[in-house]
Amino acid sequence: MLLMGESINGTRKQVAEAITARDAEFIKTLATDQVDAGAHVLDVNGGVAGGDEVADLLWLIETVRSATDTQLMVDSASPQALQAGVEACVKDGGKVPFINSISGEQSRIDAVLPLIDAYKCPVVGLCLSDEGIPPTAEDRFAVAMKLVELATGAGLAPEDLWIDPLVLTVSADSDAGVVTMQTLRMIKEKLPVRTTGGLSNVSFGLPNRPLLNRTFVAMCAGIGIDGAVLDVRNKAMMATIKAIEALRGEDPYCGRYLKAHRAGLLEQTA
Amino acid sequence: MLLMGESINGTRKQVAEAITARDAEFIKTLATDQVDAGAHVLDVNGGVAGGDEVADLLWLIETVRSATDTQLMVDSASPQALQAGVEACVKDGGKVPFINSISGEQSRIDAVLPLIDAYKCPVVGLCLSDEGIPPTAEDRFAVAMKLVELATGAGLAPEDLWIDPLVLTVSADSDAGVVTMQTLRMIKEKLPVRTTGGLSNVSFGLPNRPLLNRTFVAMCAGIGIDGAVLDVRNKAMMATIKAIEALRGEDPYCGRYLKAHRAGLLEQTA
Repeated sequence: MLLMGESINGTRKQVAEAITARDAEFIKTLATDQVDAGAHVLDVNGGVAGGDEVADLLWLIETVRSATDTQLMVDSASPQALQAGVEACVKDGGKVPFINSISGEQSRIDAVLPLIDAYKCPVVGLCLSDEGIPPTAEDRFAVAMKLVELATGAGLAPEDLWIDPLVLTVSADSDAGVVTMQTLRMIKEKLPVRTTGGLSNVSFGLPNRPLLNRTFVAMCAGIGIDGAVLDVRNKAMMATIKAIEALRGEDPYCGRYLKAHRAGLLEQTA
Repeated sequence: MLLMGESINGTRKQVAEAITARDAEFIKTLATDQVDAGAHVLDVNGGVAGGDEVADLLWLIETVRSATDTQLMVDSASPQALQAGVEACVKDGGKVPFINSISGEQSRIDAVLPLIDAYKCPVVGLCLSDEGIPPTAEDRFAVAMKLVELATGAGLAPEDLWIDPLVLTVSADSDAGVVTMQTLRMIKEKLPVRTTGGLSNVSFGLPNRPLLNRTFVAMCAGIGIDGAVLDVRNKAMMATIKAIEALRGEDPYCGRYLKAHRAGLLEQTA
């Protein structure tokens, strides 16, 4: 499972403060902690309220790149920030980053397609249109089909399009998780793309969110989700991920599971 | 999700001792503890090494019925014990029990079909034939199809056949979990039956088994498993079950999840 570390995000208070203060050590530690915990890709979002997003994002990327050569994921709603961020990632031989994200919204399509065309960036595709998040799995799947057509039309290999079926909270709608899982199932059955999700929204407004979050990741893993955007520093979540990989045949001889056990990373959660 | 409590089983040392000593209080407590923990059905297996299985099973059923009117699941490899057990369950207006289990093995078919025909017992059907447990999902599915034909031919409603795809341990074969999940997916897509599983075998030989077990239950729940045979007294497992039900839309307004939270049943595992 491809683990996309979510923590370097300017909408979070501590990160926003670090960006504003240009506290490079804080950001570098956040990067290396996530890599040490198992992140394969690091999301980087410079969107601080009242900040200069392009300048903040460029500083963030430069700072993270000074600490690790892990693949980054440029996360922004701004076309200018996305463009500048991708350029900053590939400068001096850096890895082509993920883009987070394209969707069925026309403004996103206009911003992201040229970057895909130019850099062949792998991209997260949200099942969301100008009308919002479709309430049914069929309509979310229709957005996914449109994104496949657009991305492959821009020269992207379908396996570099990572569709996120999106999830709303079950505290407001009991069927929120079901619709997400139905959408995921349809995509896995019918489209040649890969799948991911920022799944923790499912537990918004409920107690014991980590329990719901890791259970939902496991449920989506049973359906076949290929990646997840998550807090890789959460030990119970990562213990679940280790279990998932052993149970999905992605961990030969359960080697990583046993190594995590020997390191004491599973015990407190067993 | 239908929770089948596995604990009253004569192959377990403490239960075997209680059966041999006719310790009714131990058995009654084991029954009511499981019901209090959320079991919908109680498996009852009187197979003690060196014991008289029919006599032991009849005592067990009588003892459990004196403590609870929860539906039972008569669990035996012996045709005589199954017949006597079913009769003991329905005596004096008792609920028709589950039978655990039929399979593609001819001896099982011969033993169980007449009971299905006579009592319309819901039955667990194992994806197992006279040649053993098929290594591929396709061959396990073929057994499932045969069981549907046999059970419905004996007058059983297909939704009263609960197919168990079976699972071997991932410590011996990395694909063991994958084959089980593939089989489950095929059954959910193509057969009108329900599905269940004694899933804990997946973790045999590995450390931190409860972590693997509850993660695998969640993965199978994502695919749509309808029930599970498990130790309902395991608090972390039951916290996962509460999360699964909230995430599958089976817990309106997350009422049972919130109740479990207020009772402190989720906290230690969050």
